[in-house]
Amino acid sequence: MIGRLNHVAIAVPDLEAASEQYRGTLGAEVGLPQDEPDHGVTVVFIALPNTKIELLHPLGEDSPIRGFLDKNPAGGIHHICYEVEDILAARDRLAAGGARVLGGGEPKIGAHGKPVLFLHPKDFNGCLIELEQV
Amino acid sequence: MIGRLNHVAIAVPDLEAASEQYRGTLGAEVGLPQDEPDHGVTVVFIALPNTKIELLHPLGEDSPIRGFLDKNPAGGIHHICYEVEDILAARDRLAAGGARVLGGGEPKIGAHGKPVLFLHPKDFNGCLIELEQV
Repeated sequence: MIGRLNHVAIAVPDLEAASEQYRGTLGAEVGLPQDEPDHGVTVVFIALPNTKIELLHPLGEDSPIRGFLDKNPAGGIHHICYEVEDILAARDRLAAGGARVLGGGEPKIGAHGKPVLFLHPKDFNGCLIELEQV
Repeated sequence: MIGRLNHVAIAVPDLEAASEQYRGTLGAEVGLPQDEPDHGVTVVFIALPNTKIELLHPLGEDSPIRGFLDKNPAGGIHHICYEVEDILAARDRLAAGGARVLGGGEPKIGAHGKPVLFLHPKDFNGCLIELEQV
């Protein structure tokens, strides 16, 4: 069912410093910050040859990653995203397997403009997993 | 400098259950457990179309991931691994940038039989980063 690893998302306390570190010290191809007000984050995409890293920083008071950074002030890996072909079929298969889908199980439009779901980390080895329909 | 994302490593408290979940519920291509006594882990490789997930479980008393699981009993993402062409050049560039390389800065032979280094998570947004020469 799951396909490519779409991205690894890293929450960072200082987006400019993290961008400069990936661009300079690590020599990666780093994009410009993009505000995603609907998702409460500012995102910087880092293009690797086979997948992406997304640096996330809170935007606004209700940012879903603010609590994560409060608990992890230095930052940390926030989630990983797997691609699926059919998000509703994926949801039904997961529910049948007893896994909890966050947000009532209805896909939302994610930061890439595609339907996404998040799975409960407690059901997946402590990892927050995003599924994105591609 | 950094190239492909070689793998995402997830520490899991129950390797059999996590393998079955990725094989069954998530429908991925999951390998058999491999003991890596030199590294204190048993590893299960999950092949995605563009990269790998590695499930890690402690092997032996001195496993480097035992402390991580003590702190995160449900499991969690332990590290991410970027590929580099020349690990000594990478180390020197990182040191020049002020980043701390763990283990005295001398590459070791990693679980894939290739030279690896680990970078201090405090210097990289709370993420433990492995560099592997490919």
